[in-house]
Amino acid sequence: MITKMILSNGQYGEKMNFKELIKHSNQATIVFNSRIGVERESQRISQDGRLAQTDHPKSLGSRLYHPYVQTDFAESQMEMITPVCGSIDELFDWLAAIHKVVLQSLPDDELLWPLSMPPALPQLDGDIPLAKLDKFEDVLYRRYLSQVYGRKKQMVSGIHFNYELPDSLMQSVFNQQNEFSDFNLFKTNIYMKISRNYMHYRFMITYLFGASPYAFANYFSQSDQVPREPIRSIRNSRLGYVNKEDISVSFQSLDNYLSDLHKLVHEGKLIEEKEFYSAVRLRAGNQVSDLDDHGIDYLELRNIDVNPFDEYGVNKREIKFLELFMLFMLWTDETPDYNLEMREGNVFNETVAKENPNEQTKLFVQAMHLITDIRTMTNELNIDGATDVVDWAESLIKNPALTLASKMVDTSATDKLQFAIRTAQSNKVDTLSVPYQLNGFENMELSTQQLIFDAIQKGVTVSIIDKNDQLIGLEFNGNKRYVKNGNMTDLDSYVVPLIMKNKLATKKILSNAGFNVPAGVELMNLSDAKSYASQISSAIVVKPKSMNYRLGVSVFHHQPTKDEFLAAVSRALKAGDSVLVEELIEGTEFRFFVINHEVKAVLKRMPANVTGDGSHTIAELVQRKNASLMRGVVDRAPLTKINMGTLERKILASQNLSWSSILNVGQTVYLRENSNISTGGDSIDCTDEMADYYKQYALNAVETLGAVVCGIDLVIPDINDTQRATIIEANFNPAMHMHMYPYQGKSHRLTLDVLKMLFPTLKV
Amino acid sequence: MITKMILSNGQYGEKMNFKELIKHSNQATIVFNSRIGVERESQRISQDGRLAQTDHPKSLGSRLYHPYVQTDFAESQMEMITPVCGSIDELFDWLAAIHKVVLQSLPDDELLWPLSMPPALPQLDGDIPLAKLDKFEDVLYRRYLSQVYGRKKQMVSGIHFNYELPDSLMQSVFNQQNEFSDFNLFKTNIYMKISRNYMHYRFMITYLFGASPYAFANYFSQSDQVPREPIRSIRNSRLGYVNKEDISVSFQSLDNYLSDLHKLVHEGKLIEEKEFYSAVRLRAGNQVSDLDDHGIDYLELRNIDVNPFDEYGVNKREIKFLELFMLFMLWTDETPDYNLEMREGNVFNETVAKENPNEQTKLFVQAMHLITDIRTMTNELNIDGATDVVDWAESLIKNPALTLASKMVDTSATDKLQFAIRTAQSNKVDTLSVPYQLNGFENMELSTQQLIFDAIQKGVTVSIIDKNDQLIGLEFNGNKRYVKNGNMTDLDSYVVPLIMKNKLATKKILSNAGFNVPAGVELMNLSDAKSYASQISSAIVVKPKSMNYRLGVSVFHHQPTKDEFLAAVSRALKAGDSVLVEELIEGTEFRFFVINHEVKAVLKRMPANVTGDGSHTIAELVQRKNASLMRGVVDRAPLTKINMGTLERKILASQNLSWSSILNVGQTVYLRENSNISTGGDSIDCTDEMADYYKQYALNAVETLGAVVCGIDLVIPDINDTQRATIIEANFNPAMHMHMYPYQGKSHRLTLDVLKMLFPTLKV
Repeated sequence: MITKMILSNGQYGEKMNFKELIKHSNQATIVFNSRIGVERESQRISQDGRLAQTDHPKSLGSRLYHPYVQTDFAESQMEMITPVCGSIDELFDWLAAIHKVVLQSLPDDELLWPLSMPPALPQLDGDIPLAKLDKFEDVLYRRYLSQVYGRKKQMVSGIHFNYELPDSLMQSVFNQQNEFSDFNLFKTNIYMKISRNYMHYRFMITYLFGASPYAFANYFSQSDQVPREPIRSIRNSRLGYVNKEDISVSFQSLDNYLSDLHKLVHEGKLIEEKEFYSAVRLRAGNQVSDLDDHGIDYLELRNIDVNPFDEYGVNKREIKFLELFMLFMLWTDETPDYNLEMREGNVFNETVAKENPNEQTKLFVQAMHLITDIRTMTNELNIDGATDVVDWAESLIKNPALTLASKMVDTSATDKLQFAIRTAQSNKVDTLSVPYQLNGFENMELSTQQLIFDAIQKGVTVSIIDKNDQLIGLEFNGNKRYVKNGNMTDLDSYVVPLIMKNKLATKKILSNAGFNVPAGVELMNLSDAKSYASQISSAIVVKPKSMNYRLGVSVFHHQPTKDEFLAAVSRALKAGDSVLVEELIEGTEFRFFVINHEVKAVLKRMPANVTGDGSHTIAELVQRKNASLMRGVVDRAPLTKINMGTLERKILASQNLSWSSILNVGQTVYLRENSNISTGGDSIDCTDEMADYYKQYALNAVETLGAVVCGIDLVIPDINDTQRATIIEANFNPAMHMHMYPYQGKSHRLTLDVLKMLFPTLKV
Repeated sequence: MITKMILSNGQYGEKMNFKELIKHSNQATIVFNSRIGVERESQRISQDGRLAQTDHPKSLGSRLYHPYVQTDFAESQMEMITPVCGSIDELFDWLAAIHKVVLQSLPDDELLWPLSMPPALPQLDGDIPLAKLDKFEDVLYRRYLSQVYGRKKQMVSGIHFNYELPDSLMQSVFNQQNEFSDFNLFKTNIYMKISRNYMHYRFMITYLFGASPYAFANYFSQSDQVPREPIRSIRNSRLGYVNKEDISVSFQSLDNYLSDLHKLVHEGKLIEEKEFYSAVRLRAGNQVSDLDDHGIDYLELRNIDVNPFDEYGVNKREIKFLELFMLFMLWTDETPDYNLEMREGNVFNETVAKENPNEQTKLFVQAMHLITDIRTMTNELNIDGATDVVDWAESLIKNPALTLASKMVDTSATDKLQFAIRTAQSNKVDTLSVPYQLNGFENMELSTQQLIFDAIQKGVTVSIIDKNDQLIGLEFNGNKRYVKNGNMTDLDSYVVPLIMKNKLATKKILSNAGFNVPAGVELMNLSDAKSYASQISSAIVVKPKSMNYRLGVSVFHHQPTKDEFLAAVSRALKAGDSVLVEELIEGTEFRFFVINHEVKAVLKRMPANVTGDGSHTIAELVQRKNASLMRGVVDRAPLTKINMGTLERKILASQNLSWSSILNVGQTVYLRENSNISTGGDSIDCTDEMADYYKQYALNAVETLGAVVCGIDLVIPDINDTQRATIIEANFNPAMHMHMYPYQGKSHRLTLDVLKMLFPTLKV
């Protein structure tokens, strides 16, 4: 199984047969679970397609530590950085989310430029504002780059793709061989092989991903540099942003690579190692010195143009192809002559980059040969789901008109700018279409979506511990906190929510501390209820002891009959173990949202209702109200669609109305007795109007319960007249979205308060 | 509705018609929900019926603050004090619990004397050891009492009954009248009326409850004091512990009562107000001065003898009668001549107390008249459940042989001692019969029972917030903490248990921190499982993601077939939303119980099993094992009965066995694959044997999760050889009882650790 290879010291020796090793590892099927990440660059532009002159948006927190959004060279140049992901779907969830956050954070009149080549640049190089970074060394570095390469060359955008083989595949291949006993050394050699092959065969990527056929005004400082006709990729040709000709670094071994780099820096040809640009960069941690310490951890591909036809600059099929291609780079043999390979690789790439996009590539035979070999690999390794991707690549090779570059050139110069602007506009509109959703995480609860939004925006590192369980980790400045369902954190104690879950216990504790709570009894079963029935002499509420969303709650505004009462108890027993019968407190119910010892929002909730216009039926009015984007499924939208069920019908009937009744102009009709948002109610923010007395009362009650986050419900008989309130409920995981997107009134961004509570030093 | 009454200033004025007021209040039905409490006194004795010479048990914590167990005059004299209760059942739950704690805390050879009159006393008064109290003023007061009354008189025991009318009844009667506008003043007048009537009619209580017909050696210092024949109640006659003849205090009004008391103290006839003994004591807070401040809150009846036929010295029917009798004291009119009433009351009481218990009382007519009036009251007020109690009282009046005193005298002197000793013995045996249960709270979870036991024993105030929800409050030294299910407290944060509930999240966090966890995947449904099936190549465990008691868990010691695997997934899906498939880690599983940053216990659990004796069938062996008192229902006994169901039968069948197989001597057979105690497993304590390495590993993992209380399960392949462990589970509300009552090995009282954690300054 051992054949000749280039050893880590650069010597040609016994070489591992990777085809056999990979085949025997039995792990190739997980190639699509490689650890991957994307950095997508873009320019902020105005609506007319000019570079934005504004500062990096303040709402995006500090670039000193931001893990997701950075600026690159210029202040207008944004870099959107995903975390490392274990699947393509996860990667695109993050791309979607970060794009949503960035686009939402831009001024209304700004867009993201969708092309690799920058829009029209100022005539004077010095008119491009450098990124306004806090660290002076970062500013200095950019000034140096301006001097050496000019600012304009730095304005090109691309996709950087970080790639790490699945750990179990790497481990399994390692276990199959006996050439290396050190795992890190083994890994480094694997990545060196991949890198060399990538440098050799990268023309294929330039062909498939090339999308910089033309430049806009002032990109080229001398007019004789401008290509006479469109080419596949200005960016990946020597017309793009490349090091000077005398910069050459060997990929023969990591040692060679590092010593070449050190030498260039030492000789002053590079100011730092990171000034060395190449199609693939060897990576380990953050600094080049990490490579020295423990070898290569992953590779960064830097020669991928931005795909203007996809809102994230790259699509899933392309990433899938890249994953296959990287595996193939390990799979396929090298020739013994390293220098020849590198020279060939550079010539091949420059050839493809400079071709007319509409013409068949001169490397057609080589490209088709590669496709055949990749297909052979996917067959031999039984890789599911590979065929489509290889077919796609093959079709582009056979038909240049299908390539990105070709699709981009079929327009006049004006149309080119318009194409870019229209694309930028529709990307923004599409991304922001549902304002309250965090794209990529739409299936999580709305409050968790919003919390993740805020974390991404402010630069708090998010890890999704369990998507289905609404459980996330947040990390800032070395502090790690976990959050479940948007506001359940380690700042609340364990037992307090357990108390609040139990309505009887909550009442007992509040009442002992002198707060007003409705008088009541607990009934364990129907026979308890039968004996208790005779004692009822007033308006009451019947509800399950532990309840959710008011299921099984009955409200009697007048003393119920025995039968009515027993029916209500039966309903409540279905929803819980036992039943509370409480006096009904008449008045208006308000939800006070307390977080971290402050009342942050107060809401009045109105039962599901419609208001007439003299012409539409109630059914039509409901349908119209439900058509609003703000109404959806419980916990996934700020408001809930009004149900048109039996209960609503009965409540209409009790008012001598039906679905087909037509209401007078301005006549409001309620379709539920309870006012929960989850049953179609309306949320009306009253934070500013609410008297301090009640806020303090609510806060004191929450402090008595010992809660840090609590939604506490007060019934207030007369908000202007008296200082009298009764506490009817305390909720340990109160909904936040209804305060953030109220039906009427001011929005209160409570998720930001959660972040502030968790990380008091975070700049928000 | 207003008729003449004695006003608070002692003047005879317009009086409220309480019969009408009570009737109109519509609240009399809740008389059996009065707020009541009992103090039961007793002497610690040796097995031969002599006063214990030992100190008050150290395990009972400090008498400086103990709310439940105090000593009275002598070191051997125990006072068991219930909290205020809202129902008779609740009161007897507390009596049962406190008696259990006290009897368990006594030295093995000590008992509780069951009679009001003390056992044989030392000849010399000075040989009775005074209570060894910490506060010097308390010691001083006892020395004074020794001087004035002699120590022997102080050795009598009784039942003190604290009585407060139900608040809603009091409030409702208050609302019906217009004589008083101040509620406290009104309440005080109510209780003054009850007290005067009680002083008048207390002969009835002496008759029904009198149970001190004879004394033992040396109670009477002069032989001429000894009654020639048994009487109903030495304790309630002037032969009992009474103030001197010249001590007289008026009950005409609270002002009179207080000024008389102050005068007696001022003149030196009493050393303190509390030296005044009477059948009823007016109470408000802890000090007499509180009466001055806000009037009477409740009454304390002090003339109830200890009922030797009931293990708590009083029974439910008697308490029920007392509640009715107190309401009747409010109901029935007074005569205008207060002094006559008091004189008559004293004469009546002394007459009854000194009568021969076997003879009809001289107050027969008066007693029957009272019974008739009480019956009228219960009828007019429609009080349910009163008839039995009144019938009982009537039967005792008609038939003196049914009285306690009469039943006690039908024995010779030797038999009297033997009766008392035998009663004391059987009370102790009965009370301690199920050692792990806290009597009165048997329906709560065992761990909560034990925690309440410890709290009562150490003097932490317990409030049962919700019995069904295992939610209690604990208060010590002004600090209030809540505990749910024995060890869920405010010291654990909210989100940590939510993480632990999610096996996948737990694994992710532990694995990120470098701990060994089983590799695995999450499958959302059966179709996921079908595509995953081909990837299984080893022994696995299939389990629901969120699980309880191992429901739906399948263990495959060899690679399962696809069908076996899918069947296991189906089972797991029934028990949870999604399914985890994990590699099976072979080795022994240990439960490490971590509390407050220390490993407090380590347990090995063996699957349900029986060991053969060469003659019994497996079914018989199971039945024999299940017959142990230690086995019962999950969470209500230290071990769980072994189920004889389909699963067990199948596991036997897989070993070619059936229920009727007979095992060889010493042959052990397992009836389950899982080792949980909840499915009949055995618990074997290994705390001392476990190497520190593993304890530290478990502790570090718990610290990583951020938990304060955690049961963490490690699989250790070879406990002696290597330092390798895999964490397979973390439990946020770990069972404690299995460590406290292990099947084999040392007991670890974890509930005491919970108390120590909650109240670091508590003396345990």
